[in-house]
Amino acid sequence: MSVTVICGGVGAARLLVGIRRVMSDDQITAIANVGDDFRIHGLYISPDLDTITYTTAGAVSQERGWGLEGETWQAMEMVGRYGGVDWFGLGDRDLGTHLYRTHRLTQGASLSSVTAEIIRAWGLNYTLLPVTNDQLQTFVTTQDEGEISFQEYFVRRQHSVEVSKVRFVGAASATPAPGVLESIEAADRIVIAPSNPVVSIDPVLSVPSVSEALAARRQSVTAVSPIVGGKALKGPADRLMSELGRDASVVGVAEWYRHMVSTLVIDEVDAHHRQSIEALGVDVIVMPTVMSSPQITDRLARVVCGLA
Amino acid sequence: MSVTVICGGVGAARLLVGIRRVMSDDQITAIANVGDDFRIHGLYISPDLDTITYTTAGAVSQERGWGLEGETWQAMEMVGRYGGVDWFGLGDRDLGTHLYRTHRLTQGASLSSVTAEIIRAWGLNYTLLPVTNDQLQTFVTTQDEGEISFQEYFVRRQHSVEVSKVRFVGAASATPAPGVLESIEAADRIVIAPSNPVVSIDPVLSVPSVSEALAARRQSVTAVSPIVGGKALKGPADRLMSELGRDASVVGVAEWYRHMVSTLVIDEVDAHHRQSIEALGVDVIVMPTVMSSPQITDRLARVVCGLA
Repeated sequence: MSVTVICGGVGAARLLVGIRRVMSDDQITAIANVGDDFRIHGLYISPDLDTITYTTAGAVSQERGWGLEGETWQAMEMVGRYGGVDWFGLGDRDLGTHLYRTHRLTQGASLSSVTAEIIRAWGLNYTLLPVTNDQLQTFVTTQDEGEISFQEYFVRRQHSVEVSKVRFVGAASATPAPGVLESIEAADRIVIAPSNPVVSIDPVLSVPSVSEALAARRQSVTAVSPIVGGKALKGPADRLMSELGRDASVVGVAEWYRHMVSTLVIDEVDAHHRQSIEALGVDVIVMPTVMSSPQITDRLARVVCGLA
Repeated sequence: MSVTVICGGVGAARLLVGIRRVMSDDQITAIANVGDDFRIHGLYISPDLDTITYTTAGAVSQERGWGLEGETWQAMEMVGRYGGVDWFGLGDRDLGTHLYRTHRLTQGASLSSVTAEIIRAWGLNYTLLPVTNDQLQTFVTTQDEGEISFQEYFVRRQHSVEVSKVRFVGAASATPAPGVLESIEAADRIVIAPSNPVVSIDPVLSVPSVSEALAARRQSVTAVSPIVGGKALKGPADRLMSELGRDASVVGVAEWYRHMVSTLVIDEVDAHHRQSIEALGVDVIVMPTVMSSPQITDRLARVVCGLA
């Protein structure tokens, strides 16, 4: 029994915590979005890889949902003293991860090798793969600033501006990282985590062959809706879907994924959408999906892994 | 009345503290070695510029003589957890300086512009110039490892290996930073600080036109010997001089600098070398040079600035 999980950041990381409680690490492969990756202060930052690592290691800040518990901010205070760019918060402990990753990449190591080294150092034995080792960066077009990088939109602008277009720069010439296609082809179950379809899952799907590989396994692919009652649990998924002319609802999520997903897990508050989703040819599982307790998380994990 | 000081790191920084007490900031220009600069973890590090900045700002760690007081080491602990390169200690506060500098350099700012921004942020109003904005890096040849960078020699190997050759890579095509030649030409007094002649002052002199500019001002140039009683006060200056076939003494220092220095300040313990130095055509001032108290430091500062 094996499972491959297509991941964004926080929502995916929380589901992975549950999956790791109901399956063993050697059965689990997580494929992560790298469209959020960027360089700042000379450092290479991989926000989703780090959120997944820190969360599954039990080291993530519970308060913030990203970065590390027990963090200090001495470096950023100094950057602030110089009047430097401090809108992207880098904790001192977190900086150690960025220093290590940047150093290894500079030495010529691939992002997947470095990712494996990092999760091993955290005592994690599942497989975490960036979707690609090539450059792939999400940009969004806004009315007032034109096209800006995802982090400028998400962090600096606090995703408070309207987006008219999303673009994954580099995607067309990117190659899936070693193991990505193989794990999609070989897994007993494939899960699309409750992450932002527009800016977390779509960059993964934009890498050539990945969406085709998923479509070929459609009967084994289950997605968890990140939209509950018409709202994103976290972040701008609902607004982005509306701004791009989609329905910000579980039905919109089903439309988004229907070509590669045979089952959509939706929350009980959305039960009334069941028929609209089934009309799209997508099966529906209705259950609590807001991972507010370990019990709910584990039950969701069991269902998506086909253990329920 | 104006003074220009040719600087390495710790010894120069301490003398500058004294000079700033006996002169005003608008009279002082410090020209710093950048041969120790290097990149690690993707960050651009300027050890001598930082030591000078932190020391003159009164923020340097008194215990270590480099880096900042009140420092924490969370980032490096994390790098260590990953098995990363941790022989070059980067404190969390100090990292803020490297993040800021690297970011500005990436934006296309020159090292001298960034240096000015950094010292202003520390409330310092003297002029601190890197000798060049171009790449210039000191390498040493060792028996067991061949040619290694200065920081690998100085920090990783704790300068415990014999050196057969010193090379300043990039020097031949480097240009003095704006203000460097002008401040040497215009200063009333020029001081060569008590820094390592081989690996701190020589990289400065290796930039084309700098040693010629100093030689043209020889009558106004005073050096303070970094060798006291045949020993370097700090670091490997004495061993390096011996290893390169020079006399590790105040006489050796006078020989090293004679073409561009008219006066050498030596410590009282070296008074018996006076005649040998004068025989080289270099005047001698004998006085306490070990800056172990503010009084000694200020008296030394007054003498080298021609105020005594």
